[in-house]
Amino acid sequence: MEKDTICALATAPCGALGIIRISGEKPLEILSHIFSKDLTNAHPNTIHYGYILNDSEIIDEVMVSVFRAPHSYTGEDCVEISCHGSRYILNKVLELLIANGCRMANPGEFTQRAYLNGKLDLSQAEAVADLIASTNKATHQMAMSQLRGGISTELSRLRDQLLKLTSLLELELDFSDHEDLEFANRTELLELAIKTDERITRLAESFHAGNALKNGIPVAIVGAPNVGKSTLLNALLGEERAIVSDVQGTTRDAIEDTILLDGITFRFIDTAGIRHTDDPIELMGIQRTYAAIDKASIVLWLIDAEPTNEEITDITARCEGRSLIPVWNKSDLLSPCPVCCDIITAPIPISAKHGQGLDTLRQQLLDAAPQLPDNDVVVTNARHYDALCRAHNHIQRVLDGLGATKYSPLGHCSLATERLRIGDRITGMGTQEYSTLKSQLPTDLVAEDLRLTLDALAEITGGQITPNEVLGNIFKNFCIGK
Amino acid sequence: MEKDTICALATAPCGALGIIRISGEKPLEILSHIFSKDLTNAHPNTIHYGYILNDSEIIDEVMVSVFRAPHSYTGEDCVEISCHGSRYILNKVLELLIANGCRMANPGEFTQRAYLNGKLDLSQAEAVADLIASTNKATHQMAMSQLRGGISTELSRLRDQLLKLTSLLELELDFSDHEDLEFANRTELLELAIKTDERITRLAESFHAGNALKNGIPVAIVGAPNVGKSTLLNALLGEERAIVSDVQGTTRDAIEDTILLDGITFRFIDTAGIRHTDDPIELMGIQRTYAAIDKASIVLWLIDAEPTNEEITDITARCEGRSLIPVWNKSDLLSPCPVCCDIITAPIPISAKHGQGLDTLRQQLLDAAPQLPDNDVVVTNARHYDALCRAHNHIQRVLDGLGATKYSPLGHCSLATERLRIGDRITGMGTQEYSTLKSQLPTDLVAEDLRLTLDALAEITGGQITPNEVLGNIFKNFCIGK
Repeated sequence: MEKDTICALATAPCGALGIIRISGEKPLEILSHIFSKDLTNAHPNTIHYGYILNDSEIIDEVMVSVFRAPHSYTGEDCVEISCHGSRYILNKVLELLIANGCRMANPGEFTQRAYLNGKLDLSQAEAVADLIASTNKATHQMAMSQLRGGISTELSRLRDQLLKLTSLLELELDFSDHEDLEFANRTELLELAIKTDERITRLAESFHAGNALKNGIPVAIVGAPNVGKSTLLNALLGEERAIVSDVQGTTRDAIEDTILLDGITFRFIDTAGIRHTDDPIELMGIQRTYAAIDKASIVLWLIDAEPTNEEITDITARCEGRSLIPVWNKSDLLSPCPVCCDIITAPIPISAKHGQGLDTLRQQLLDAAPQLPDNDVVVTNARHYDALCRAHNHIQRVLDGLGATKYSPLGHCSLATERLRIGDRITGMGTQEYSTLKSQLPTDLVAEDLRLTLDALAEITGGQITPNEVLGNIFKNFCIGK
Repeated sequence: MEKDTICALATAPCGALGIIRISGEKPLEILSHIFSKDLTNAHPNTIHYGYILNDSEIIDEVMVSVFRAPHSYTGEDCVEISCHGSRYILNKVLELLIANGCRMANPGEFTQRAYLNGKLDLSQAEAVADLIASTNKATHQMAMSQLRGGISTELSRLRDQLLKLTSLLELELDFSDHEDLEFANRTELLELAIKTDERITRLAESFHAGNALKNGIPVAIVGAPNVGKSTLLNALLGEERAIVSDVQGTTRDAIEDTILLDGITFRFIDTAGIRHTDDPIELMGIQRTYAAIDKASIVLWLIDAEPTNEEITDITARCEGRSLIPVWNKSDLLSPCPVCCDIITAPIPISAKHGQGLDTLRQQLLDAAPQLPDNDVVVTNARHYDALCRAHNHIQRVLDGLGATKYSPLGHCSLATERLRIGDRITGMGTQEYSTLKSQLPTDLVAEDLRLTLDALAEITGGQITPNEVLGNIFKNFCIGK
């Protein structure tokens, strides 16, 4: 474990204040070379006024906060220098610290040290970055839940279940000549395996909602030429345009048309092709419309005339697994048709041009958005999702190995299609039915699959030794100074 | 004096950390409504870990620093909350503080309170803003000197001198029938008045250097068409282009072509007109060249052929009071002429195209830059300069009133022209000679001028009651949170 002393600017430059953070083996010894007071014996959690000095030249009047291991963010001795927020001063102080033995911190290195010193697990460390990047209530809530150990607690429960499974498997091995006992065990074993499988599946499935909430829920506005798609988009953006700054680090994606409704970001997929009307390459426009639907979670189908049955069949087929919201534009000119209301849900009457009916439409968008479960854990991190998918495949092999060939899992029907959309990572779920038949695999092979399931889950919290390469990938996207 | 509790973000948003600052009558009582611990009895200069809560919802895990009046920046009870740097979190915490009785701080209001509570005088308060805005060694050094009381000490000495003058004047009044006594007093009186006048003049004159160093030293590149002015400018900028950010508050002026040499900013005056060659409106180009020279402190006169005596006479006349640096371009093609070297300083041979001789030229720019006196006070603030000019005019009237009609003041000859350039604010200096003649004004009128001199100087440090309007003007350009 690295023990050298690292330093970095922990705030954005150009404010009234700038905070420089130092952590490692000897932050106070290094500081003593450039500070007007000797703080090497300072009490923990105390603040000290003084000057940063370059020989006798005063660089700044500052406040120094002292933290002592292990009761600090990193678990090491830490110092925070609160300077005036001048770029010149902040650079000069960092320069002096480095001249006296500090090293410039890598991105996320303070949090990485907190992880290595057992102050946070890996999923909590990742939540720190998500928390800093959070821009609305939904992303904040998910990051805070993860930081507070939401996923960690859930995984710890799963681990207990898997360890219990292992011990039951060993019991079966020991009593393999007692048929009665085996049968009793086998039922319990299988029930537990199914329960574990369900839980892993539900966690993995939560990634779709979590990811959509984290990165903005993709919405496509589709409809016939000249029906008013651009007008609707502008009407929605006009009043509620999400404040998106182009300062690096504030947004994860390229700047898009987004709106923030009740703490949830809706992201309008580039629908340039949909705006296309009657030029000769109409086919290309239609293809782009289909592509937009494929990427969307919510489709706003804008109509201003009664659609044919064929059109309705076509759009409902294309929008399977998505929320399809029919919207009747130009309601000030034409009343919504009663016929189409019988086939799909009643269209919302609006006038994009006059801004009528938009509140109802916004409420429909909110109703169609994935809901954050109140007391349930949501996976928002692609690395976690990847590990869960692998854990899922291993626990499937455990179920197979135990001879459970048919099984109808719990779970929401709609999630099956969402799972497919995410990338078909979870294999063979939702159609088989498992029954309690005699295992066709040797017990030790089943035990190996159990171990692999445990390993995959352990990657999420970094409970076992995590390769440096993986750590590097996790922390490289952090800001410097955290 | 306002005593309500104010809050503001003190750092730029979007860093790893964001600091929210609270100051006033009851920051800890307000905090107790939204913090997981009761800190109303917390010791001064201590740091406390806990949660910011919105009812039971955790908004952030934070560190809270507690400062107690009068030992805080503002002189009031103060709290600093170190949050994760998410915009959402920072806005939410501010929102909660305001919901619980805080008011959003005005720009500079923390520093204004520090001034009103006697922690800083007005010139020191202004130095805080300059310090935060400082981008190089020179501006940092001047701001730090001012913050450390450089000007305040100097003005306090002047005030002592003026008070001594007043008492001598009163002594003269008391003993006006003793001719011997009066004469002795009158000599001392006049000597003191002259000394005070000199000091005020020198301070006011330092504004030219201070202002140039603060805002960048204006440089004009002039010369005949096609002599290589643009090439030279690009060669100088190419290697040393000053890092100028367009973030509000980092630069005082519109973005210009600037270079930073040895901690000093050189600002190239827009010389578009000078780049003009032989089009029919040549006269306009020449006028613009003259305008550029008028605005410059340093003129680089680029030549590639021996100038005529007339040209030399013309340029030296136009550059009076400025540093004129002749530069011989295309030195790889033509050797500098010996003749012109005899008349003005030897031109620096360079090749702008091939980057030769640029180091020598840079050194010449540095040598021509105003020097910061090591132990002398420099005025960098236009408000201070304005007050000094008025003080100067009043002390002139004192000198006149004392009958000193001829007097040759100390001071650097070159400054006389610089003074004119600043705007001819200091009237009638450097040509008269004062002698010790009997006063032609009643002593009480002289005393009134003395009082006005004192008042003008007191405005700088805000020693007497400063009108709210003046305070408003001073602090409105501060960042919020300072």
